[in-house]
Amino acid sequence: MRQSQLFTKTQKTSPKDEESKNAQLLIRAGFIHKEMAGVYTYLPLGLRVFNKIAQIIREEMNAIGGQELLMTTLQSPEIWKLSGRWGQEQTDSRSGLPWFKTKLASGGELGIANTHEEALTTILCQHVSSYKDLPIYAYQFQNKFRNELRVKNGIMRTREFVMKDLYSFSRSEEEFRVFYEKCAASYLRIFKRLGIGDATFRTFASGGAFSKFSDEFQTLSEVGEDSIYLDRKKQIAVNEEIYTNEVLADLGLKKDTLEKVKSIEVGNIFPLGTKYSDALGLKYRDERGEQKPVVMGSYGIGLGRSLGAVVEVHADEKGMVWPLSIAPFHVHLIALAGVEAETEKLYKELSRTMEVLYDDRTEVRAGEKFADADLIGIPYRVVVSKKTLEEESVEVKERKSGHIDRIPITELQNFLTRPL
Amino acid sequence: MRQSQLFTKTQKTSPKDEESKNAQLLIRAGFIHKEMAGVYTYLPLGLRVFNKIAQIIREEMNAIGGQELLMTTLQSPEIWKLSGRWGQEQTDSRSGLPWFKTKLASGGELGIANTHEEALTTILCQHVSSYKDLPIYAYQFQNKFRNELRVKNGIMRTREFVMKDLYSFSRSEEEFRVFYEKCAASYLRIFKRLGIGDATFRTFASGGAFSKFSDEFQTLSEVGEDSIYLDRKKQIAVNEEIYTNEVLADLGLKKDTLEKVKSIEVGNIFPLGTKYSDALGLKYRDERGEQKPVVMGSYGIGLGRSLGAVVEVHADEKGMVWPLSIAPFHVHLIALAGVEAETEKLYKELSRTMEVLYDDRTEVRAGEKFADADLIGIPYRVVVSKKTLEEESVEVKERKSGHIDRIPITELQNFLTRPL
Repeated sequence: MRQSQLFTKTQKTSPKDEESKNAQLLIRAGFIHKEMAGVYTYLPLGLRVFNKIAQIIREEMNAIGGQELLMTTLQSPEIWKLSGRWGQEQTDSRSGLPWFKTKLASGGELGIANTHEEALTTILCQHVSSYKDLPIYAYQFQNKFRNELRVKNGIMRTREFVMKDLYSFSRSEEEFRVFYEKCAASYLRIFKRLGIGDATFRTFASGGAFSKFSDEFQTLSEVGEDSIYLDRKKQIAVNEEIYTNEVLADLGLKKDTLEKVKSIEVGNIFPLGTKYSDALGLKYRDERGEQKPVVMGSYGIGLGRSLGAVVEVHADEKGMVWPLSIAPFHVHLIALAGVEAETEKLYKELSRTMEVLYDDRTEVRAGEKFADADLIGIPYRVVVSKKTLEEESVEVKERKSGHIDRIPITELQNFLTRPL
Repeated sequence: MRQSQLFTKTQKTSPKDEESKNAQLLIRAGFIHKEMAGVYTYLPLGLRVFNKIAQIIREEMNAIGGQELLMTTLQSPEIWKLSGRWGQEQTDSRSGLPWFKTKLASGGELGIANTHEEALTTILCQHVSSYKDLPIYAYQFQNKFRNELRVKNGIMRTREFVMKDLYSFSRSEEEFRVFYEKCAASYLRIFKRLGIGDATFRTFASGGAFSKFSDEFQTLSEVGEDSIYLDRKKQIAVNEEIYTNEVLADLGLKKDTLEKVKSIEVGNIFPLGTKYSDALGLKYRDERGEQKPVVMGSYGIGLGRSLGAVVEVHADEKGMVWPLSIAPFHVHLIALAGVEAETEKLYKELSRTMEVLYDDRTEVRAGEKFADADLIGIPYRVVVSKKTLEEESVEVKERKSGHIDRIPITELQNFLTRPL
């Protein structure tokens, strides 16, 4: 894409109403726009990253048998009254469901969805009757609305956000546990592919009514809202909220190998037992014809929060640093005065096999283009100049390391696509 | 995909609370689930069609210079008060904005977005200052909420629906008109690719304050809410609402060549003039340094309505008939008793190059599988039997024509992918 055509502009200074690094950089670079506190629009560059994150998650969910659907934001109160969650008027998503509600012109109140256990369980009542219909793993990428009293950390805790939420429906606790572990492994693969694998750890947390533990996926970061106790060697952690001698003994962890760190919860997986299937009447007939409730689990990843975590983990003082897997573009090609024709030619060639943001702006000086490239954070910056052309080469800067190479034009394609 | 794994089931009878063909068939076939009146979940088969429609629209919008973004559902009242649309409490989207509103826990009212002129104009105030920054064409696929007093026609007029909405920002009326015509041509290409090109006509409609006409794209259908006067030879129509002698004279149309027909509005393009740029202060400096308001237009396509229109136009008494371009799968492969191993082998081979729904269910008799295949409406049904295998062939039925061919297995791949 030609940068002269991109409708967003970078800003030199950080917005005054944002404290977090992720929101400051994403706004400055033109990836997002703040609609109001806790509500952000994804602008073209941000949406490209967002969609790549979604696609990685989709591939991994499909690989463990997930079937994608798309449920609704407007929710009828009836099914929520059955589960007892309609009345939960919390104002913090950590302690319950902070509802937004609205009214139908034709009469009656509606909920604006903040999660979908009730909705999906109701749908499945029409499609499940026998043990042969199970297990089922269904997921969606859907907008959630949470009426948080306070929002913080930029795109980390917001009032409107897209979540990948998968729900599992199993015949037994044993069958549920097998999938639960499969999904935990899948989550670790996802965070690795998003470029935060080294900083993200499976973390034991409070389990609720049906299980001793649930599992969170926590990315180490100073700006995280959570505190966890991490055993780096075993690659697992315990959330502060359940950090007791009893829990440590259960998990075989010792206090002196644990390190207390701040972290961002980028995902969680949660045993639901038969809470919702009991409340909403989702049963199946087993091999002997007996009616049994379905055993459920829920599995969430916040897309905006993951995107924000990547910014927090990798950004440096110059700007963002995107992993290749989710970068808005593969290469940032910069045109300098005097070699426009050659750069244009290179743009067309590279674009055949990779995504190129081509800074073809004519009235912006080189220094400003370089600063923008650092701020936007595309993995490779390629600059053509008279000097490099004398040797039929270009200059390639790797954003992450800052390392600069002189690469012959004939080898450029291979260099940029070599496995790292 | 194996049909035994698909979590949805078909239903033999139509739901009693749906009158329209589109909702009846889509629900019976397991493409959608009715959450409440005018609010539908897309189940896996339906979501596949939905996503293909979105991708076709995306490709065509990108081809005319569109840049994709994703705006928010929660809307602050301030910008809507500037345009005067906050107070418009209509209960029918044909006469205004039927708002859903909600309340923030931290205080204050919020809107639940039904359109995005105000939001995008506000965003662009931060990115546009000079004539060099224009024109801009930005679009999104975003959920809209309209508090309709009455819903009807299944997924055609709903309270929650995804729309592709593009907005154009031009320096002059002339520049705007060039894009407007480009987008009209793009819309005709889109409806052609969706398989309703022959039934869809550009239709002159009321233009509002800034233009004599706007343009609708109307698909002929008995269940349509609109009445239009169609000139089949000229391939244009006039909406009943502006059917006057003066308008006909303007358009060079004659009463005796016009045919009155019912139709579904699947898209519309609309000149906005400077209404929103004036109200929200979106200006640019021209070549002479003068401040001028930006000239705008809006361009919508309802995805659910397009999907519903395809069902209405193509379905027959046995079920739905999907065009190849948006079919949930390319081929419906049916396993019969006794030849499971051979069918399984064929499934794996075909899946390498095309999307196959493989009816591998073991306890469903052949007649039921055939009825399901007709209901679901995948373009090709492939059946392997002992008889066909004697000739190393399979039976291929084209859903649309009902035509059945015996095709040698070695030629099957070519047959199924031949240009039509």
